[in-house]
Amino acid sequence: MTLDALRDSVCRANRALAATDLVVETFGNVSGFDRESGLVAIKPSGVPYDALTPADIVVLSVETGAVVAGSLRPSSDTPTHLALYRAFGCGGIVHTHSVWATTLAQARLPVRCMGTTHADYFRGDVPVTRPLRAEEVEDEYEANTGRVIVETFEVNGLSPEEVPAVLVANHGPFVWGPDPFAAIERARVLELLARMDLAGRLVAPDAPRPAPFLVDRHYFRKHGAGAYYGQPHR
Amino acid sequence: MTLDALRDSVCRANRALAATDLVVETFGNVSGFDRESGLVAIKPSGVPYDALTPADIVVLSVETGAVVAGSLRPSSDTPTHLALYRAFGCGGIVHTHSVWATTLAQARLPVRCMGTTHADYFRGDVPVTRPLRAEEVEDEYEANTGRVIVETFEVNGLSPEEVPAVLVANHGPFVWGPDPFAAIERARVLELLARMDLAGRLVAPDAPRPAPFLVDRHYFRKHGAGAYYGQPHR
Amino acid sequence: MTLDALRDSVCRANRALAATDLVVETFGNVSGFDRESGLVAIKPSGVPYDALTPADIVVLSVETGAVVAGSLRPSSDTPTHLALYRAFGCGGIVHTHSVWATTLAQARLPVRCMGTTHADYFRGDVPVTRPLRAEEVEDEYEANTGRVIVETFEVNGLSPEEVPAVLVANHGPFVWGPDPFAAIERARVLELLARMDLAGRLVAPDAPRPAPFLVDRHYFRKHGAGAYYGQPHR
Amino acid sequence: MTLDALRDSVCRANRALAATDLVVETFGNVSGFDRESGLVAIKPSGVPYDALTPADIVVLSVETGAVVAGSLRPSSDTPTHLALYRAFGCGGIVHTHSVWATTLAQARLPVRCMGTTHADYFRGDVPVTRPLRAEEVEDEYEANTGRVIVETFEVNGLSPEEVPAVLVANHGPFVWGPDPFAAIERARVLELLARMDLAGRLVAPDAPRPAPFLVDRHYFRKHGAGAYYGQPHR
Repeated sequence: MTLDALRDSVCRANRALAATDLVVETFGNVSGFDRESGLVAIKPSGVPYDALTPADIVVLSVETGAVVAGSLRPSSDTPTHLALYRAFGCGGIVHTHSVWATTLAQARLPVRCMGTTHADYFRGDVPVTRPLRAEEVEDEYEANTGRVIVETFEVNGLSPEEVPAVLVANHGPFVWGPDPFAAIERARVLELLARMDLAGRLVAPDAPRPAPFLVDRHYFRKHGAGAYYGQPHR
Repeated sequence: MTLDALRDSVCRANRALAATDLVVETFGNVSGFDRESGLVAIKPSGVPYDALTPADIVVLSVETGAVVAGSLRPSSDTPTHLALYRAFGCGGIVHTHSVWATTLAQARLPVRCMGTTHADYFRGDVPVTRPLRAEEVEDEYEANTGRVIVETFEVNGLSPEEVPAVLVANHGPFVWGPDPFAAIERARVLELLARMDLAGRLVAPDAPRPAPFLVDRHYFRKHGAGAYYGQPHR
Repeated sequence: MTLDALRDSVCRANRALAATDLVVETFGNVSGFDRESGLVAIKPSGVPYDALTPADIVVLSVETGAVVAGSLRPSSDTPTHLALYRAFGCGGIVHTHSVWATTLAQARLPVRCMGTTHADYFRGDVPVTRPLRAEEVEDEYEANTGRVIVETFEVNGLSPEEVPAVLVANHGPFVWGPDPFAAIERARVLELLARMDLAGRLVAPDAPRPAPFLVDRHYFRKHGAGAYYGQPHR
Repeated sequence: MTLDALRDSVCRANRALAATDLVVETFGNVSGFDRESGLVAIKPSGVPYDALTPADIVVLSVETGAVVAGSLRPSSDTPTHLALYRAFGCGGIVHTHSVWATTLAQARLPVRCMGTTHADYFRGDVPVTRPLRAEEVEDEYEANTGRVIVETFEVNGLSPEEVPAVLVANHGPFVWGPDPFAAIERARVLELLARMDLAGRLVAPDAPRPAPFLVDRHYFRKHGAGAYYGQPHR
């Protein structure tokens, strides 16, 4: 992908995110990663979404974090995005403070898999990280946020491909996918799932979970070699 | 009804559904059934609603499930729709993952009849199915979803005409009516009823139910020979 | 007021009501009363709001209920409206199935006065009626709904001018005012109050009430001879 | 700032407030303060937002409260605004009855700081005042509302710059900032925070708070000399 195409895609993705109800004020950002060139493109920090142009998008090296193109400061969350691109095989990352996912993050509760809507997108609970320690917050805070996300997947034996999202404790959701637009779609669905799980926790805290065979049936109906949802790729 | 008229009606109904707030992403579908010709028309699988044209609508035999017209894959939920058309006397079916009805489905709770808004459309609680068993999920999953819905009405002695909706456990609502548009109207009302019942369960879990004579008064004010709501048919 | 002016006003009021989020499907209606001529104008039953014209509005005698103008069936709730016009000194009535007021009506809970937003419009709790008895539902159901509303105010010593709304148990709100548009404004505020009271009951069921002197300060800041809110009448 | 510029800014701010979902009916108002001239500009009482022109905006002396320009009655809450301008170093104040902040005010609960969304704007809980006493309500009610707000910050040792908002018990939020538009932005964020805290109190009443070092990290990422969020001022 050319540098221009990457910036253009990330600019459009950030504006598409702002058109959802996931974004309040300037909270949130989208990045994209071109694995071939090793370049990450991301929203500049604190710039209103409706004023964004491709030239505002900041481009960095995934390895060194050095800015390659763009004159604005990148999102303050950039080191978190870089850590995830290094550890996970994804091409787009969305971070928001969307209301229901953030409420669960503040309650330090996972988004439980309670039905087929969830299983169509995520093969099991979307986890919540442990809180960061004082030294992790005081030095390299944003990079450590990324490290704690990666740790959460390792410690719990989770696949970042099958469960492409996380809640950072007392912060909010990070969601990823093969490209920025797929990440946005998943962030929208995660918000719906968080809203339903939160309401479900109130109305029926002890409701039984769906059986693993139902979760897998739905997950693999849409993902992998045996998928039969949607139209065959042409 | 001609094939063209059926496809056109189902196409318009799917686009009308997408204009409601019942649909998130590509979740949900509407089908229509022409009982005379034995043909069912349904949304293709995973196709965005705003791109739908009548030619995209897939037409199948209600008896064999064989595709009669259309080159796209039908909705993966098609076998559920066919099972309901075979068992119930309806002409339109809507399936969604609307937030409040789905939350109750995930909590495995019925939509309780708590007032006249409910009784105007449904003569009693909208039931929730039992969860499917492993073998029912592993083989002919979608057809078995339809069978379990029919079983729910038989076991509980419910009339699918008087209670034209169901929550599938850990999945979401299916709603039916004489035609696709009537089914959409009922799906919208069901979502309102689910929202109100869910909030009511939180604020007053032991609130008394409306008396059966009030439920019947409202149901029969709008349905059947003695109806006096609305204008006389001309 | 001329018959034409009354019908025109009630037609506009019904369309204004439909533009709020208080109305779902065809639930709800507005009426207006010209006390001088003794005529009540009301929405026809089950007619979509966006198709309403002044000629569709049905005009009846408040005393006999006889139709004076209009060829459509009046709202099935008409006898409730007539009962309220006979007993209370109001000129407009709104009935809706708005989600939060209806949820409290189904829970048989009043809208408690918990703050100044409430006290600016209603001097104290908005009450909920007792449920109707079998014989009251089976015969003259809608007229009896009106009688039970009036009874609620008499038994509890409430002023229908100071508390111009009620929740009918397991049904929904009726709201009144000097004219149809004032009644709509109050119905919108009531819905906000119901939403806030319902959430407040969940988060702090034992929260103390505002002191009566605060309620009266706000109520009389906007109502009566000592009012100093808004601009002086010119 | 000229008188015209102040009125124009406050007029635009009031219309901007009305375009948010914080305002219901005519509840709410925005004022602006030009510290150099000692003049406060504020919305007139009870006038619909969409009819507001700069000439309608009332201008008063912050010291005496005397009207300097404008022929309409100022907002009935004016004495509250004046008290805050005298005590706090702010240039804009917003008062609303927004649904979630008002619900917590009615429950007499603070908006707890539960995460980074909150800490980005407010360094700690947004407090709730004590209820006013009878004599404080009966005489100089609105001025006393301001005095109780100031008392709340003094008694609790809070900085009105670091925590630029308050909930008035059984009433609603007041929010301030360097100018009217900054106050509106904070009022929007406060409403989001109130919504999330209220839901969090229901789903996880005992959830641990974010560590003070996380709160400070986020607060000082956006505020003060060491801020690195957003773009450098040019």
